[in-house]
Amino acid sequence: MDTVFGGIEGGGTKFVLVLGTGPDHILDEARFPTTTPAETLGRVVSFFQRPRAGVKFAAVGVSSFGPIDPDRASPTYGYVTTTPKPHWPNTDVVGMLRGALDVPVGWDTDTNGAALGERRWGAGGDADPLVYITVGTGIGGGALVDGRPVHGLMHPEMGHLLVPSFDGDTFPGICPYHGRCLEGVACGPAMEARMGRPAQDLLPDDPAWELEARYLAFGMLSIAEVLSPKRIIVGGGLGLATGLLDRVRRHVVRLNNGYISRPGLGDAVDSYIVPPGLGALAGAMGALELARLAYEEQ
Amino acid sequence: MDTVFGGIEGGGTKFVLVLGTGPDHILDEARFPTTTPAETLGRVVSFFQRPRAGVKFAAVGVSSFGPIDPDRASPTYGYVTTTPKPHWPNTDVVGMLRGALDVPVGWDTDTNGAALGERRWGAGGDADPLVYITVGTGIGGGALVDGRPVHGLMHPEMGHLLVPSFDGDTFPGICPYHGRCLEGVACGPAMEARMGRPAQDLLPDDPAWELEARYLAFGMLSIAEVLSPKRIIVGGGLGLATGLLDRVRRHVVRLNNGYISRPGLGDAVDSYIVPPGLGALAGAMGALELARLAYEEQ
Repeated sequence: MDTVFGGIEGGGTKFVLVLGTGPDHILDEARFPTTTPAETLGRVVSFFQRPRAGVKFAAVGVSSFGPIDPDRASPTYGYVTTTPKPHWPNTDVVGMLRGALDVPVGWDTDTNGAALGERRWGAGGDADPLVYITVGTGIGGGALVDGRPVHGLMHPEMGHLLVPSFDGDTFPGICPYHGRCLEGVACGPAMEARMGRPAQDLLPDDPAWELEARYLAFGMLSIAEVLSPKRIIVGGGLGLATGLLDRVRRHVVRLNNGYISRPGLGDAVDSYIVPPGLGALAGAMGALELARLAYEEQ
Repeated sequence: MDTVFGGIEGGGTKFVLVLGTGPDHILDEARFPTTTPAETLGRVVSFFQRPRAGVKFAAVGVSSFGPIDPDRASPTYGYVTTTPKPHWPNTDVVGMLRGALDVPVGWDTDTNGAALGERRWGAGGDADPLVYITVGTGIGGGALVDGRPVHGLMHPEMGHLLVPSFDGDTFPGICPYHGRCLEGVACGPAMEARMGRPAQDLLPDDPAWELEARYLAFGMLSIAEVLSPKRIIVGGGLGLATGLLDRVRRHVVRLNNGYISRPGLGDAVDSYIVPPGLGALAGAMGALELARLAYEEQ
């Protein structure tokens, strides 16, 4: 029998499921839109319950959109908590999966999960601390210290860093909590609201890209100043847009202005701020790694 | 023989030395202004070389102003590096002390050190991650994750978080690298430059305190969003000013606006953002703890 794990990347827009042990050993996969918890988690359960010959399904891991409760001592451990996403506030994801699948369930944020995946199989290497930022429908960031995901009061919420105004920008931001936080001014829907059309329809030399890069650079320098990561991996649909990362790197170096005198914030910024080695698979692979950790811990 | 340690809080303004094993067991102490490295470290060496009956002096620890090089694999490990402080750039503090005292030398930033001291004997408890922020002549922040000081690309430089303008503030800031970073607008000398007189001469209801509190709150919320600490300890001459911490707490809760829905950023903010249990001794006690760790590791 081949012992395999289930990886669930639970995004606010879509769910991605994989069955296997890593990027070179994927036996099955599925993806579908995120609808109600009952329907979506129902599809998850039926995917993993499907009979497969010669395979021992040992554990499942979830890298989830948030906010989530990652505190094992908490009565709401395993819940998606105060998300603005309809139907999902206070959803007991871990309890539902554990009840239906009867295997250990690993659980973390999408970005902490992606950081785990990138550390094991992608661009993370042995960089410690390691940060993974996603820029897309929302903006989020996760972190590993000594290889372990960071939790504390809750979990990192790097997308909600408040930001100054750059270039006289008066856009009020779209975050319902903060208005002008990083996500509020720089996620995909914020770019669209600001420019009146989706980011992918903007020409490569549209000044909106330069402003976008400045905001992202502000966020990354703030993260570097608080946590001193050895590498920052940037994924997500918008984060991977052509040419954006190069602009971000230039602005990070400019904003730091030589203060943190390390090559990563100077000449070697190209190897400090990098795209994910696993591309769009980082979250799902991270979920597999969460499953493996839950399996080994049981 | 009584095994004791030496703690050195190396500040940009003054050095504080203690000999002992903790706050309840201090055999000797000294403090003097920070002048040149040769003179200052010379006084450190002669203090610890002084013959004392019945005492085995086993190791020394330094919690130092920075930036420093905390990377043991680096050729400049143990150096104060690119500090703007005259005479001190590229000073091999650890090498000098190890050569003269012939004992293991622990080494970290003043704020990482203070966090260690607060964790062992002060207000840290088992909060993990734990952040210590000092607000005084400069602003700095250190962090422990799983009880260990955070290092990475360098070490946390939380005082240099770039900040927006609040209340129409046009003060250009005094940081030579960034102008308007947290230290640039909110350290003691910045308050003095903005108001034309030292912070301690301002009346308690001067609006400058409210602006100061907003900037500090911005920094603390950013730190909470990146690292999710379970507690933030605030020390330093200005950080301990009467009434300031209460204002900071109110602004942190306001800026978070309910997003991170944890009591620490709401009703229980008084036990989330707290003064140091060791008061002004946090740095020196942290240095003792660094000494003990270096001794146990040798």
